[in-house]
Amino acid sequence: MLASYDKISVVGVGLIGGSIGRAAIARGVCRQVVGIGRNADRLDQAVRAGVIHQGTVELAEGVAGADLVVVCTPVQRIVSDVCRAAASTAAGAWITDVGSTKARIVEQVREQAPASTRFIGSHPLAGSEKSGFEHARPDLLEGRWVVITPASHTAGQVAEAATAFWQALGANVRSMSPGEHDRAMAWVSHLPHLVAAALAGGTRPELIELAASGWRDTTRIAAGDVELWTQILADNRQEVLGVLDKLLENLQEFRTALGDEDAQRLAGLLNTGKKNRDVVAD
Amino acid sequence: MLASYDKISVVGVGLIGGSIGRAAIARGVCRQVVGIGRNADRLDQAVRAGVIHQGTVELAEGVAGADLVVVCTPVQRIVSDVCRAAASTAAGAWITDVGSTKARIVEQVREQAPASTRFIGSHPLAGSEKSGFEHARPDLLEGRWVVITPASHTAGQVAEAATAFWQALGANVRSMSPGEHDRAMAWVSHLPHLVAAALAGGTRPELIELAASGWRDTTRIAAGDVELWTQILADNRQEVLGVLDKLLENLQEFRTALGDEDAQRLAGLLNTGKKNRDVVAD
Repeated sequence: MLASYDKISVVGVGLIGGSIGRAAIARGVCRQVVGIGRNADRLDQAVRAGVIHQGTVELAEGVAGADLVVVCTPVQRIVSDVCRAAASTAAGAWITDVGSTKARIVEQVREQAPASTRFIGSHPLAGSEKSGFEHARPDLLEGRWVVITPASHTAGQVAEAATAFWQALGANVRSMSPGEHDRAMAWVSHLPHLVAAALAGGTRPELIELAASGWRDTTRIAAGDVELWTQILADNRQEVLGVLDKLLENLQEFRTALGDEDAQRLAGLLNTGKKNRDVVAD
Repeated sequence: MLASYDKISVVGVGLIGGSIGRAAIARGVCRQVVGIGRNADRLDQAVRAGVIHQGTVELAEGVAGADLVVVCTPVQRIVSDVCRAAASTAAGAWITDVGSTKARIVEQVREQAPASTRFIGSHPLAGSEKSGFEHARPDLLEGRWVVITPASHTAGQVAEAATAFWQALGANVRSMSPGEHDRAMAWVSHLPHLVAAALAGGTRPELIELAASGWRDTTRIAAGDVELWTQILADNRQEVLGVLDKLLENLQEFRTALGDEDAQRLAGLLNTGKKNRDVVAD
């Protein structure tokens, strides 16, 4: 399957949806990008900004005739948007999403969408604290990972199409089952957020002005959108609880090493962290 | 007391010691900066780089005639270096250090140095992952906090001299007791380091390449020097244990909210973190 389309519809024209639109236009991946949103004025602005070619607040109208629908709405709305898109697209079209959790979404789409729906979950690992299409960039996905999550019921052709599409936007693609994805994200995204929030939340406000770069780095993501992160953590509850328990064990080991004044053990624990952190450059 | 000196001696010419030397020279705070180190070649290089005027491996010789000695060696060596400096300086001189912990150092100096020693603990909150005088910058302290930690036995004149000195290098000065300082640093520096190490250490290495900016920010300081951080954490053991227990309580609250599927409670916890994090800009 070629990564070339006549019409791509993007449901939710924010930072990610807008960046997908810009990238698809810039890289000639499709002839037309239609954006579906809730606010007609914002969609007009997005058209004038060159993020999409056309906008509409009617999902059925916006996805009609599309070869590909990319659902970029918040995680709690993805399943219903996918189902609505499936009801209004032709048989050959395929649908994906960009939600941060995958197991529940993939399972509920299987249960709720027509059996003929050609859906695969995707997750571009390219967040930003910024939101809104104004910050959309055609290179947001360049060199970044997109995880695609075929389930046992996903057609191989759809997985191939998704791989080719994300690669055409400049991303590196990795395939994992929805469950594997959620376990991995619990470690590398959801737990860090929870920990940053717990650390920031515990710090007495009058001490914060003394915080140097260590505290600032470690707590930075705690500034993220509360509603969005409540949904993500709730959605991936089981996996997050599992890795949180593992972290609590690690912290107890630090506690024991400190309490026992066991400098060698403490250095060993710090060293394990350093070795893993040194894998990435910055 | 004026912030103007004939001779300042810096014991330990690394990033901080070197930056103090450069700043004192650039701002005309003294006529002469002498660096004391362990490696004569490195000291020669520091002289050629304009970080110090003169270098020596003999502490007694290097501090003789100094009006001010700033001890910038690792925390486990500070007390003995302060005592040796006290033995070789004249009655009018005062001594400070730049160690990351303060209660043990201040107490041990009181016990071990001659009663006439005019010492006050300092802690410039301006670290960097870089080390070595090559990265020393005359503006490293500009606009940064330096905490000075007068104890009940510290002469008021020495606290005034320290305030004027650090201000002359461009820093903002805050005064706290050594114990208050160590409690504050446990929250804003030592606990974040421990948490970053526990988080990085727990992450399975094969997942790390999927880590986006959240994991990278939250674990960045785990790459710090293991020996240095073992010393700091061991030194401030009691306070770190106290704040670690508070963090463990916070994490248990997150655990309960997640386990109970209590989205409102979860959002409340995330919001407390966000409110505190939003106090600082970046």
